[in-house]
Amino acid sequence: MIGRLNHVAIATQDVAAASEVYRGAMGAKVTEPQDLPEHGVRVVFVELPNTKVELLEPLGENSPIAAFLAKNPAGGLHHVCYEVEDIEAAAAQVAAGGARVLGPPKIGAHGKPVVFIHPKDVSGVLTELEQV
Amino acid sequence: MIGRLNHVAIATQDVAAASEVYRGAMGAKVTEPQDLPEHGVRVVFVELPNTKVELLEPLGENSPIAAFLAKNPAGGLHHVCYEVEDIEAAAAQVAAGGARVLGPPKIGAHGKPVVFIHPKDVSGVLTELEQV
Repeated sequence: MIGRLNHVAIATQDVAAASEVYRGAMGAKVTEPQDLPEHGVRVVFVELPNTKVELLEPLGENSPIAAFLAKNPAGGLHHVCYEVEDIEAAAAQVAAGGARVLGPPKIGAHGKPVVFIHPKDVSGVLTELEQV
Repeated sequence: MIGRLNHVAIATQDVAAASEVYRGAMGAKVTEPQDLPEHGVRVVFVELPNTKVELLEPLGENSPIAAFLAKNPAGGLHHVCYEVEDIEAAAAQVAAGGARVLGPPKIGAHGKPVVFIHPKDVSGVLTELEQV
């Protein structure tokens, strides 16, 4: 079912500073910071040949990454996202396989339907599925 | 400098159980568990079309992931690995860019030269570079 690794998301207090490390010390291609207020994050994409890394900074009062950064003030790996062809079928297969799907599909930060799987059911890793 | 995302590594107490979730609930192709005693891990590869996820279980007394699992008993994202063409040049560029390289290159779990970058210098993420 799961296809490509769409992205790895890294939470940080400051995407501008974080992206400088990827651009400078690691020589990667990074985008300019972009605000996604409806998703509560400011994002920078680190564009790799086969996938991308998303650097996420909290934006606004109710950012979904605020709690993670309160526990991990230095930042850290936040979630991974895999592509699926059909989000409803994927969510059903995950649930049938005994892993908890966190709510019905909603529109994610890329404008596509997504669901998240409970980290405790996937080796402690918050896991997103995105219909592409 | 950095090229493809070679892998995302996830630490878990039990790769056999963890891999069943990837195989069953998520429908991914996973390998049989493989012991790498010289690296202190048992590993399962989740093979995706564009990269791979490595599920790592501690093996032996001095496993490099034991401390992580003591802090994160449910498992979690452990590190990410990017490909580079020349490990010595890459390590020099990282250091020149102000990030700390953890020791000289050594041979990693795939039999290729690797270095790690201090997580505090890369958004809290333990970052491996592998010469391919």
